[in-house]
Amino acid sequence: MAKVGILMGSDSDLAIMSKAAQILEKFGIEYEMTIISAHRMPDIFVDYAKSAMDKGIKIIIAGAGGAAHLPGMTAALFPLPVIGVPIMTKGLGGVDSLYSIVQMPSGIPVATVAINGAANAGLLAVKMLALEDPSLIEKLNAYSLEMKEGVMAKAQKLDKIGYDEYIKQM
Amino acid sequence: MAKVGILMGSDSDLAIMSKAAQILEKFGIEYEMTIISAHRMPDIFVDYAKSAMDKGIKIIIAGAGGAAHLPGMTAALFPLPVIGVPIMTKGLGGVDSLYSIVQMPSGIPVATVAINGAANAGLLAVKMLALEDPSLIEKLNAYSLEMKEGVMAKAQKLDKIGYDEYIKQM
Amino acid sequence: MAKVGILMGSDSDLAIMSKAAQILEKFGIEYEMTIISAHRMPDIFVDYAKSAMDKGIKIIIAGAGGAAHLPGMTAALFPLPVIGVPIMTKGLGGVDSLYSIVQMPSGIPVATVAINGAANAGLLAVKMLALEDPSLIEKLNAYSLEMKEGVMAKAQKLDKIGYDEYIKQM
Amino acid sequence: MAKVGILMGSDSDLAIMSKAAQILEKFGIEYEMTIISAHRMPDIFVDYAKSAMDKGIKIIIAGAGGAAHLPGMTAALFPLPVIGVPIMTKGLGGVDSLYSIVQMPSGIPVATVAINGAANAGLLAVKMLALEDPSLIEKLNAYSLEMKEGVMAKAQKLDKIGYDEYIKQM
Amino acid sequence: MAKVGILMGSDSDLAIMSKAAQILEKFGIEYEMTIISAHRMPDIFVDYAKSAMDKGIKIIIAGAGGAAHLPGMTAALFPLPVIGVPIMTKGLGGVDSLYSIVQMPSGIPVATVAINGAANAGLLAVKMLALEDPSLIEKLNAYSLEMKEGVMAKAQKLDKIGYDEYIKQM
Amino acid sequence: MAKVGILMGSDSDLAIMSKAAQILEKFGIEYEMTIISAHRMPDIFVDYAKSAMDKGIKIIIAGAGGAAHLPGMTAALFPLPVIGVPIMTKGLGGVDSLYSIVQMPSGIPVATVAINGAANAGLLAVKMLALEDPSLIEKLNAYSLEMKEGVMAKAQKLDKIGYDEYIKQM
Amino acid sequence: MAKVGILMGSDSDLAIMSKAAQILEKFGIEYEMTIISAHRMPDIFVDYAKSAMDKGIKIIIAGAGGAAHLPGMTAALFPLPVIGVPIMTKGLGGVDSLYSIVQMPSGIPVATVAINGAANAGLLAVKMLALEDPSLIEKLNAYSLEMKEGVMAKAQKLDKIGYDEYIKQM
Amino acid sequence: MAKVGILMGSDSDLAIMSKAAQILEKFGIEYEMTIISAHRMPDIFVDYAKSAMDKGIKIIIAGAGGAAHLPGMTAALFPLPVIGVPIMTKGLGGVDSLYSIVQMPSGIPVATVAINGAANAGLLAVKMLALEDPSLIEKLNAYSLEMKEGVMAKAQKLDKIGYDEYIKQM
Repeated sequence: MAKVGILMGSDSDLAIMSKAAQILEKFGIEYEMTIISAHRMPDIFVDYAKSAMDKGIKIIIAGAGGAAHLPGMTAALFPLPVIGVPIMTKGLGGVDSLYSIVQMPSGIPVATVAINGAANAGLLAVKMLALEDPSLIEKLNAYSLEMKEGVMAKAQKLDKIGYDEYIKQM
Repeated sequence: MAKVGILMGSDSDLAIMSKAAQILEKFGIEYEMTIISAHRMPDIFVDYAKSAMDKGIKIIIAGAGGAAHLPGMTAALFPLPVIGVPIMTKGLGGVDSLYSIVQMPSGIPVATVAINGAANAGLLAVKMLALEDPSLIEKLNAYSLEMKEGVMAKAQKLDKIGYDEYIKQM
Repeated sequence: MAKVGILMGSDSDLAIMSKAAQILEKFGIEYEMTIISAHRMPDIFVDYAKSAMDKGIKIIIAGAGGAAHLPGMTAALFPLPVIGVPIMTKGLGGVDSLYSIVQMPSGIPVATVAINGAANAGLLAVKMLALEDPSLIEKLNAYSLEMKEGVMAKAQKLDKIGYDEYIKQM
Repeated sequence: MAKVGILMGSDSDLAIMSKAAQILEKFGIEYEMTIISAHRMPDIFVDYAKSAMDKGIKIIIAGAGGAAHLPGMTAALFPLPVIGVPIMTKGLGGVDSLYSIVQMPSGIPVATVAINGAANAGLLAVKMLALEDPSLIEKLNAYSLEMKEGVMAKAQKLDKIGYDEYIKQM
Repeated sequence: MAKVGILMGSDSDLAIMSKAAQILEKFGIEYEMTIISAHRMPDIFVDYAKSAMDKGIKIIIAGAGGAAHLPGMTAALFPLPVIGVPIMTKGLGGVDSLYSIVQMPSGIPVATVAINGAANAGLLAVKMLALEDPSLIEKLNAYSLEMKEGVMAKAQKLDKIGYDEYIKQM
Repeated sequence: MAKVGILMGSDSDLAIMSKAAQILEKFGIEYEMTIISAHRMPDIFVDYAKSAMDKGIKIIIAGAGGAAHLPGMTAALFPLPVIGVPIMTKGLGGVDSLYSIVQMPSGIPVATVAINGAANAGLLAVKMLALEDPSLIEKLNAYSLEMKEGVMAKAQKLDKIGYDEYIKQM
Repeated sequence: MAKVGILMGSDSDLAIMSKAAQILEKFGIEYEMTIISAHRMPDIFVDYAKSAMDKGIKIIIAGAGGAAHLPGMTAALFPLPVIGVPIMTKGLGGVDSLYSIVQMPSGIPVATVAINGAANAGLLAVKMLALEDPSLIEKLNAYSLEMKEGVMAKAQKLDKIGYDEYIKQM
Repeated sequence: MAKVGILMGSDSDLAIMSKAAQILEKFGIEYEMTIISAHRMPDIFVDYAKSAMDKGIKIIIAGAGGAAHLPGMTAALFPLPVIGVPIMTKGLGGVDSLYSIVQMPSGIPVATVAINGAANAGLLAVKMLALEDPSLIEKLNAYSLEMKEGVMAKAQKLDKIGYDEYIKQM
């Protein structure tokens, strides 16, 4: 049964938002992912957000760009944590998405991550679920170790072959 | 019967939004004004936006600050024109409100005015209503004339007393 | 007889502004579209803006980029609603166009849409015209339904083929 | 035993950050609050962040302004959720704090709230804790109802006394 | 006979724009100053801008704030140099005024000075007039010397009394 | 003998700055153009700026990007008008160049044009020279007419072939 | 004999820049401080910057606001390190000063500190001088300890009296 | 033995950061360069920063993008000068990196250079080392001369072949 719902307003956000799904898969967390628009199908959206908790959804990750209302409106309807992903936009680089998601009024928080930071949204969901599932803490530690070793391997490679060669191989 | 609905998410926006009401009063247009929050009372808000047209509301003016979702969510539910007023904010000067209102996705337009531009929101509503009421065009022309004469009176005063004296009297 | 005038200051704005025309065509609204510059041909522009209402034009949509004066100057001369489309610019992403159009002084409103949001400008014109033509409301509802079904079809496709396959097909 | 740790880098952030504490008090959640600087006492900070989980801390709320590194560095050391509060700054209005907190690299998420949004940081912590404590969901619903009734009372007051009188009483 | 016209769209700009007048007075250059709005009295404005050169006006200084069209529209109608002064605004600090004035399209230049930089606008006008009046070059050199001596006097004072005492006397 | 000096700090600015030269050529105004850096060759630069007027240079156009000091430092040394061209930059889009050029302190004006607006810098120089050369006014009027006819030809083409065909031909 | 020169373009920067002096005094480093303008007295400025090293000056700290050229021009003339302090400005909050100082072209670095960060400029100078004076490293360590103890004292106070009382005492 | 440490948080910064290395090589200064992440390997990072001085490192150059904490955290642990290089980012152009690095709190300075300004970071390190090594001053003077001659050669080429030909050859 899905514990995390991943929402996006348009399929143009899918390539970014799928990175949240990949993180959840890596940590073995069931999720559901759908395209849903607070603007274009408000009734379906309201039904989704209101009934999600009863279905077992514990966290909703919502990505949106421009005047991005999906995360904030989800947070108005869903009582548990909502994580917002500001999608990069052409003209303004995503600063419009960021402000529309992070600057929420008192009482309706959205846990906002970086512009296009869907992988971190997935990871934040894992950390929240780890509050009730200690096995996830172990997995998070393993993940941290993996990241650390990844950087160390790069450092060793740089040390070994020098920057000229390293850059050529990129 | 009210033709224009003026909405705001918080009474902290009232001093600004009342300028829209004053313009509508000046043009003899009936309106209703209320405080309604898409975030804090989504059901009441959805009902309001969905039923407004049947009540005779033809235009909705919505003001909001920060991650300002009220105008855009109204536009998702109300089929006729929605005018958005970005309210100035402390840290970001209202640029957050502006982006959250103006950068709407295709299909859901919000007619956005200047930061704190509630008077212009009222005037824009009058111009829309003038499409079906020629008497309003006359009133609009009179209003333009009044503005013009106001500037001309100031120009004459400046010409007469000079800038030093004019500044002292301000 | 054209009810909507679509103006732009340069043919470099045509690809964007034609999206307003396409919306109007879709809703069966007659329009005229021309290239006119408030800066390069002020007399012709002033004549156009002053005589448009007498020709039957009820709404003017004006797009411009950079120090974008066309929408605001049109609003100074044409008594009915003016919709402004800020055109994206290279260096500043269109934030210059947006500020030049939306930050109008009290008394001269411009109904501003998103950067490059010409389709929404068209739709906003339709909504204004719907104030005096109920058949347009039906068409707007049908359009909303069409948008909703478009998103739903995408959601079903995603549900069916998964994100990996969906992204590959994009 | 404290479940939430509230950190700030300077006592100049205390007036803002205390709003997170007030929310936690309202929901009956034990917390600890301290002033700790990742820059000025890195060893003490590292010890705190590393040992917090073993002490029973499940969530850390960290507020900081300017080149705000406290939330991100906490997230590098503490495996469970970190919530970041960007503190408003004089020259840049807090946009420096916001970017320094929200734009975290992949792997190290910080759940960012609005500039000065400490109350929402507290509420977000409550929502995370509600994942393992259903009684908090009831309290969250009561809190939502309270907010809703607060707005409704204001709407009724506005309806009753009109905007002129309402503004005078503010 | 006035050689420089100083224009502003509103008397709220007068305190700033009078600094341009003071510079012109200091250099003994005749000017005229008026309040004129391209938006609120377009016909009078067009007449002014078109006939100014025939009256002997050689340079126009125009100040405006927000969606500041006055300098650019003047430049569209007046063939000689136009100097634009962006007026500081509350929410956006004058960046809206600056972009609206400086980002002019090719063919219609406006010589833009700093936000609220009306004194420099006056000085720029003097420098332009110095192209045909060598006596102004001497006055400009004297003015430069005066500025230099002003700074040197401050440097000597600081050297003499130290920063503590200097700050106390400010 | 050159009346206008065109300066740039780097040959990477040449493609943009040459547009100023083309305008001056079009109006038959002699100019000199060189690459000179206030930072990399301060002595040569100071000599150039100080001796330019004696060589007959009446106006200096200076283009620079990033922390753009060339226009402002020229204005500190050359008593006649200096026109600044902010060059577009990669990360910040030229807003760094713009602020570095336009925000000059009182006493040292730089006539700033749009980001990459070198053609307008040339035109502004022509307008300044027209103060002492009435034949240039005629040429400026002819240039305005040419621009106007250019736009009118495009408008006629659009009217004739429609937007679909027009866009295809672009 | 002064080892550090502190420069500012205007006495309005003195209150901020004196914080650099206070740090240098605290570390027992001789300095000289003067008001000098690259724009208003370019010859004196060039002489100062060129001869400073021969006088024994090893580091120059330069503060400036707006189109802030003083740090960069100093760096063009003085071969040793230049530290730039962007001064906060009214309209733009100092972002103009920051860009004008930090965005230097390749070859002419300015070590830029925070907006109004003159104390840090002083401290950075101390750290540079510590490269050739190990006794300064000891003093730097003592200073770090002092900062750390200052924060710890505040943390203890907060722990003891609680946030309500702490805020009251501020 | 390395005198300068060059750090970066990710190998994606290597192409930029290698420019600092090239400058150090040009001046014959030994350096070490590694990839190290304050977020992903905080213990290794803390060890590095704390022990660097004892190894003989006198200056650390740290580059990072987004919520860039590496330079500031290094400055919290390493007592000698830290130079920060803000790396350009996709959405925000590096303004996030810049603010995260330059806006450091009092007591912990980072000498910040331009976005992607790694070459200047290298040069700044050379200038700091020149405080204790006069032979480096000679090399710096030679470098300045080289830069100057580079610009002069370009100026001569432009003078000789004209801008059309010069642009073609670029």
